[in-house]
Amino acid sequence: MSTPRAAAYARLKARFARIAALGEAAAMLHWDASAMMPPGGAAARGEQLAVIAGLSHELLTAPEVAEDLAAAEAQGAWDEANLALMRRAHARATALPTALVEATARANSACEKVWREAKARADFAMVRPHLEEVVGLQRETAQALSAALGLDPYDALMDGYQRGVTAAEVEPIFARYEAFLRDALPRAEAIQAARPAPIPPRGPFPVAAQRALCRRLSERLGLDYAHARLDESLHPFCGGIPSDVRITTFYAEDNFAKALLGVLHETGHALYERGLPEAWARQPAGEAAGMAAHESQSLIMEMQACRSDAFLAFLGPELHAAFGGDPAPYAPDNLARLWRRVERGFIRVDADELTYPAHVILRFRLERALIGGALAVADLPGAWNEGFSRLLGLTPPDDARGCLQDIHWYDGAFGYFPSYTLGAMAAAQLMGAARRDLPGLDASLARGEVRPLTGWLREKVHAEGARLGFQDLLRAATGKPLDPQDFLHHLRARYLAAG
Amino acid sequence: MSTPRAAAYARLKARFARIAALGEAAAMLHWDASAMMPPGGAAARGEQLAVIAGLSHELLTAPEVAEDLAAAEAQGAWDEANLALMRRAHARATALPTALVEATARANSACEKVWREAKARADFAMVRPHLEEVVGLQRETAQALSAALGLDPYDALMDGYQRGVTAAEVEPIFARYEAFLRDALPRAEAIQAARPAPIPPRGPFPVAAQRALCRRLSERLGLDYAHARLDESLHPFCGGIPSDVRITTFYAEDNFAKALLGVLHETGHALYERGLPEAWARQPAGEAAGMAAHESQSLIMEMQACRSDAFLAFLGPELHAAFGGDPAPYAPDNLARLWRRVERGFIRVDADELTYPAHVILRFRLERALIGGALAVADLPGAWNEGFSRLLGLTPPDDARGCLQDIHWYDGAFGYFPSYTLGAMAAAQLMGAARRDLPGLDASLARGEVRPLTGWLREKVHAEGARLGFQDLLRAATGKPLDPQDFLHHLRARYLAAG
Repeated sequence: MSTPRAAAYARLKARFARIAALGEAAAMLHWDASAMMPPGGAAARGEQLAVIAGLSHELLTAPEVAEDLAAAEAQGAWDEANLALMRRAHARATALPTALVEATARANSACEKVWREAKARADFAMVRPHLEEVVGLQRETAQALSAALGLDPYDALMDGYQRGVTAAEVEPIFARYEAFLRDALPRAEAIQAARPAPIPPRGPFPVAAQRALCRRLSERLGLDYAHARLDESLHPFCGGIPSDVRITTFYAEDNFAKALLGVLHETGHALYERGLPEAWARQPAGEAAGMAAHESQSLIMEMQACRSDAFLAFLGPELHAAFGGDPAPYAPDNLARLWRRVERGFIRVDADELTYPAHVILRFRLERALIGGALAVADLPGAWNEGFSRLLGLTPPDDARGCLQDIHWYDGAFGYFPSYTLGAMAAAQLMGAARRDLPGLDASLARGEVRPLTGWLREKVHAEGARLGFQDLLRAATGKPLDPQDFLHHLRARYLAAG
Repeated sequence: MSTPRAAAYARLKARFARIAALGEAAAMLHWDASAMMPPGGAAARGEQLAVIAGLSHELLTAPEVAEDLAAAEAQGAWDEANLALMRRAHARATALPTALVEATARANSACEKVWREAKARADFAMVRPHLEEVVGLQRETAQALSAALGLDPYDALMDGYQRGVTAAEVEPIFARYEAFLRDALPRAEAIQAARPAPIPPRGPFPVAAQRALCRRLSERLGLDYAHARLDESLHPFCGGIPSDVRITTFYAEDNFAKALLGVLHETGHALYERGLPEAWARQPAGEAAGMAAHESQSLIMEMQACRSDAFLAFLGPELHAAFGGDPAPYAPDNLARLWRRVERGFIRVDADELTYPAHVILRFRLERALIGGALAVADLPGAWNEGFSRLLGLTPPDDARGCLQDIHWYDGAFGYFPSYTLGAMAAAQLMGAARRDLPGLDASLARGEVRPLTGWLREKVHAEGARLGFQDLLRAATGKPLDPQDFLHHLRARYLAAG
């Protein structure tokens, strides 16, 4: 017995499942492009992805979708959330004229190409006209979404990455971090300076041994290679789909830490995808709850669990067994000094846990000003250097180590950067709640058993899909919305406890 | 100045380019499924490919396509051929009701799954009901296509793999081969028996050395790894797209020949794809000219060029340099005896060049009878064994070495098998023409230079795309339509010349 309102919802579910299957295909093609594709395949790959994106957009904006969305009725919390997410996806898609979507794709791709060259030459002027076009189109997009969604323009962009989080919520959290860092950073540096310098492990570290170690440890975290692959690419990432996740890393023979910590990080992302509710596969409610939630899952593995004293006590002997040689560098306290070293630097992706948020805060403020119109692209390098110096007391020697370093803006991603630090804060908050719920957690980590934590995350975060927004997800898992206190507490314990 | 008739053609070109881009995406996902995908990804991959196939079908059968096809006018040989191919693709797609297409996909996939188990157990009864359903749907498909295209039902299926070739043309060619073989096979066996037995090379042959050798030789044939990859899969194949071809092989440490000859074969396929006319990319006229033409390109490389006396003279020392040890097995005449060994066997994919067509002739006749209704699925094993014994004088000891051995029928591919032998014959005919056009061809091969041949094929075959049908392509390249004489001549020279 299907009512017309239930039938409308059923049609929508079938349509969104088709759109999601196209999205899965695109995800695989993106992974292939980064991990497998010969350079000669790039042009055709762009064409394939453009056609898939265009068809997805047509499926989502077809006239009957609006009718079904208006008529549909869903029963129960999951279905109601699913229908609400369908309405949101449809509203975002129909807000944007096809011409704007296509112009954006073209401009982003052209800008990104020039950016690679401009970054290599540290020549901002070279890419400036392209970035102006990209920012102009992002402003237009933000305006169109703003009108359709009733959000502030920048918030409308951020909402695409992290549903329901606004700049008005983020700014005070970031301001508080800025104030914390002003005092904490010199103290952490002083404490570090008073300790013995860490002993670096001596390579070479054969790639085969690194690969085996990375795979073994990711399995220990709970990754099942009947549903996953570990490959190599220039930048580590997690791609693929829930039943077939693809993580990558980059091996250097003289340093195993980058590949290993990268794999632990990407495994966190992969476990989130693997744990999404299968019953809601290819439905909006079955997706991950956004980029901040995703980053919380990679960082809780990499930063909270795997760099903890407890886990390092397990990991040290493992590493020595894998690579041999002098055992001293693999002593847990030496690893802690190595992998928790605070160092002011220009490059976000190389930053330590304590200074990383400063890199994000700078970008958040600048991109908000760019989208809002308060900052012109021409003034970006100056504003960057000024802001960087205020936050970290250093002035970038050139734009390659300044506003040219990240691909994001040059590829049209505005509103994404806050996710990194919101994710770091959420990771600390979730770890605190997990420690309360699982009293033996650190003892398990010291035995190399990460799965109790993974199980807790699966239940509290992964299995919830996108049913709850970021804040509600945290509320349900930890008893409160995002609270930076847990992150500050974690940083104080890790970096400011002299001794 | 675009006339309405020219505008209709332009719209069609844009639509077919979109369909082709979806096909490229599917090709990449198929490659990934065979070469990369963890087992847990299979179900989702099936869903992705089904959605892509469904959308392609919708794009091809949309009402406006029929209008545009009726109105469109194209100028020039290429555009006219392109438009004719569009009409053919549309006629084939619209002939089949969506329900039949979906039922076929489901039945094929279910049957194929059971077949794997049935083959492992040599239990035909287990898969029989599934094969009955598959054959029933293929008959229905053949009837529907027959009515739409004005072809005999079996021909309508074969036309999907090899445009314009009919069973009435194929049967006399195959009958002639059967007659030739009756006499030639015992003679070849006697000649072989009188020669010294070949000395098998002694392994192990490290996989890394095999991989490097395979890559080097495929480059020598003309494959450019800026547009290609060589990977591993259970069965060697050539996948991907023209600007990004993906060949695979399977390495065994105790025998390098299978991997190497597989790579030479797949490289022939890959060179065909690479040489398709770029100006016609993603248009029907820019595709390969069908499966027999494709097989001619793999076999001209593997069988005609690389197993020739000339090339073996080059290859022998190369192999010895790669693997070391006793040089005797790598002597060109020993390689010839090894790699041209005639041996009656049950398995098509292991068959030698002389007996291979018998395997194909058997399947062609049986599948034609299955589709025509003269043979019931229940009677297939008996008919197989009887036919096999008549052709090769052996009776398969079980159905795993009989009618269960190939995936094709169990996956719904009827009308495909003839391509293998039509391709082998076309390869011999093309090689004859190439030898006439390039007087130094064998001398080049003896120096390991295959590119003169590749260049000739690129001009005569690859660059023609699908503009010409199989017979016209051969006519233009060699001066005559398919003529089995050239193949028989080649076999006589290679297997029946005592000495």
